[in-house]
Amino acid sequence: MTANLELTRLAAGDLRHRINRGEIRAVEVAEAHLEAIHAREGEVRAWTFLDPDHVMLQARMLDSLRSSGRPTGPLHGIPVGVKDIIDTRDMPTCNGTPLDAGRRPQEDAFIVSRLREAGAIVMGKTATTELAVMNPCDTRNPHDPGRTPGGSSSGSAAAVAASMVPLAIGTQTNGSVIRPASFCGVVGYKPSRGTISRRGVLVQSPALDSVGVFARSVDDAALLGDVLAVYDERDPAMRPTARPQLAEGAAAPPPLAPVLAFVPSPVWDRAEPATREAFGELRDELGDGIDQVDLPEPFDRAHGLHRTIMLTDIARNFSRYAERGRDQLSPLLQGMIDEGRTLLAVDYSLALDWTEVLNSALDRIFDRYDAIVTPATTGEAPVGLTTTGDPVFCTIWTYCGVPAITLPLLQGENGLPVGVQLVGRRGGDARLLRTASWLMRRFGIVTPQ
Amino acid sequence: MTANLELTRLAAGDLRHRINRGEIRAVEVAEAHLEAIHAREGEVRAWTFLDPDHVMLQARMLDSLRSSGRPTGPLHGIPVGVKDIIDTRDMPTCNGTPLDAGRRPQEDAFIVSRLREAGAIVMGKTATTELAVMNPCDTRNPHDPGRTPGGSSSGSAAAVAASMVPLAIGTQTNGSVIRPASFCGVVGYKPSRGTISRRGVLVQSPALDSVGVFARSVDDAALLGDVLAVYDERDPAMRPTARPQLAEGAAAPPPLAPVLAFVPSPVWDRAEPATREAFGELRDELGDGIDQVDLPEPFDRAHGLHRTIMLTDIARNFSRYAERGRDQLSPLLQGMIDEGRTLLAVDYSLALDWTEVLNSALDRIFDRYDAIVTPATTGEAPVGLTTTGDPVFCTIWTYCGVPAITLPLLQGENGLPVGVQLVGRRGGDARLLRTASWLMRRFGIVTPQ
Repeated sequence: MTANLELTRLAAGDLRHRINRGEIRAVEVAEAHLEAIHAREGEVRAWTFLDPDHVMLQARMLDSLRSSGRPTGPLHGIPVGVKDIIDTRDMPTCNGTPLDAGRRPQEDAFIVSRLREAGAIVMGKTATTELAVMNPCDTRNPHDPGRTPGGSSSGSAAAVAASMVPLAIGTQTNGSVIRPASFCGVVGYKPSRGTISRRGVLVQSPALDSVGVFARSVDDAALLGDVLAVYDERDPAMRPTARPQLAEGAAAPPPLAPVLAFVPSPVWDRAEPATREAFGELRDELGDGIDQVDLPEPFDRAHGLHRTIMLTDIARNFSRYAERGRDQLSPLLQGMIDEGRTLLAVDYSLALDWTEVLNSALDRIFDRYDAIVTPATTGEAPVGLTTTGDPVFCTIWTYCGVPAITLPLLQGENGLPVGVQLVGRRGGDARLLRTASWLMRRFGIVTPQ
Repeated sequence: MTANLELTRLAAGDLRHRINRGEIRAVEVAEAHLEAIHAREGEVRAWTFLDPDHVMLQARMLDSLRSSGRPTGPLHGIPVGVKDIIDTRDMPTCNGTPLDAGRRPQEDAFIVSRLREAGAIVMGKTATTELAVMNPCDTRNPHDPGRTPGGSSSGSAAAVAASMVPLAIGTQTNGSVIRPASFCGVVGYKPSRGTISRRGVLVQSPALDSVGVFARSVDDAALLGDVLAVYDERDPAMRPTARPQLAEGAAAPPPLAPVLAFVPSPVWDRAEPATREAFGELRDELGDGIDQVDLPEPFDRAHGLHRTIMLTDIARNFSRYAERGRDQLSPLLQGMIDEGRTLLAVDYSLALDWTEVLNSALDRIFDRYDAIVTPATTGEAPVGLTTTGDPVFCTIWTYCGVPAITLPLLQGENGLPVGVQLVGRRGGDARLLRTASWLMRRFGIVTPQ
């Protein structure tokens, strides 16, 4: 294999155009990324399943499709990593637990079907924490293998950061897309709840689970998001509205310079000193274009409300694992299940309804500001592999179901990446991506296309 | 007042046409209905607020609007009763509890605004059980004042049955539209959940509450339903889909004779012998047009799942009443609140999700049958005013959020009305009303229009 590793540094959008124009073939793209995986997987451990032969078979079929003159999809020939809680009929889906070792789903998840329709190469399955909760897998941070990549979508974030794939899919129930993206220095985008179908994805909490994407640019995140954001009547969180037009949003220059709301949020004192300092500099740089906005008092309860829903749903949905083999679950997860079983229905019901109360308050902020700016994580990825880091800066936005994106704009005191999280109005995904692209350009980051 | 009581026997659709053609005026319609109320209210006690001057003022304004040549709405000059848990800015809204005595809302409920836009005369507020739960108000059944009219929408059902209004609005969280309609011998229609906005309506259970309507014909129920079924982005159960076209559905002859599924349901043995016998005759009459379909095993759990959600939400939403004056709540409601507070979140969360499981099973029935046929109530209205009767035949359909309509086709052993309940696929409201109209005609009931 004499792969052209340069191809792994290109944006997905660029690869797509080159393949469309016939300048490169899908097999070359696949070979290059397999080579990149070969070079770094021993250290990074991003993948739980990867079959190079199956990858090359997909690539050859895509090339012959294209050469037969048939129309190609928007991800034709682009390798995509898929978190191992998302069902694939041709690869095992093991949900990060020995209790599902070797599990072979009968059907693709809805979003995997969308990937195949779009011509993507389903590269393999990326490592996840245990049942997408907190207990780490053994993926390492590509920037420093002594640190966590974050979780629960650990492998997806690390694979994109290590140029093993230009795109990957993850999920977020608390901070499982935004946090690993921040720690790994890539773009992570969690759409408004109900934008992407969760059929065929491990259910942790129907009220909180969202599918999200990893990429190295806002444009690429939008490209993948558009492929996945297809109405599925079998996901009850989805509504039959127009598709969000994310790529168009990401590419459009704002008619006026966006005005941003810096929201320290009730957990600001959990940010590390270097993070607080970096946000101070960011605010200085943006000057009149950013105001500090303090969330009203009800947001102090948001973390507790989120916890009530998450623990209850974990207890309910993962009890079947506890029944099959409680001792094969981590003590951490066992404890969460036990706690979830004790919570009261009145508190859960209240927690579900309060999302609307908090969204009403957010709506008033979004009437004045294009987006909220807030940390993605407390700081750099922590040292060691016993934790995936603290999701505390993601909780409010996940609970509210609003769209969020993290941009790799900052560095911590060790020179490791720290994300700037932008948050938009529920349903305002295209506008959020427009603001995100603007902010990247504002800081001089131009994505190669 | 020399009112023409004949007008109170006309269908709302007929009144509308006569007013539109200039044959009668809104003031005559209002006078006739006020006269009917005057004649029977002492016995029936359907109203908690009724101001004849305010009614006549509305009627005169509507007449002058029409004579000025301005366009009139679909309910122009039609009196409508509004259950007293639905906010009205010009009338008190007391929710059936002394704790809200004299309460004056600032704003109309969304659906009251729709009524006014449509030119309806908001006749007054109709009696409700305590907080729309079980504890009776003092409304009597117009067919036998020694019997309950059913509840919780007691006054709305009784007012329509006593020809005090041609139309009224109620709500259902368990059996609060279908049951009183069955006992009072009128048509009661509870649409698919998410069809009619609940903004400004007392919240008992966001997951279960539905607005429904009372009328003396399917066409009239559809007429009112169409006015109310307007998308409201502030009711999270609603989706921005096309309006249901109920009147068109009710008026359309089915292309083929509908095929019905007789569903005895897991509570069939709760039906009185006379009810079971009447359904036997109904099935004989329909012959090959009706098959018995037994619900699969998971439906045995539906009543328990419904109860978990309802008690939890009652505990949560009515705790504020218990705090303000527990001794002013009925012992029945106090007990429900106390029980609701003990329920576990995992059971509640499961109960919410199982609606989808049961709807999937119902979908398979509706793939083969136009509608489910099942009793609306166990039998005739029970004697006495200490209970509103048993909602047990409504619970499954409310839990699933499917549309249901009861038709006054049967009689019990005392010659009192018993409803036949038709149930349709979620979202299939227009088709359900089409089938209901067909069934009424099939039994020789032609509504005067």
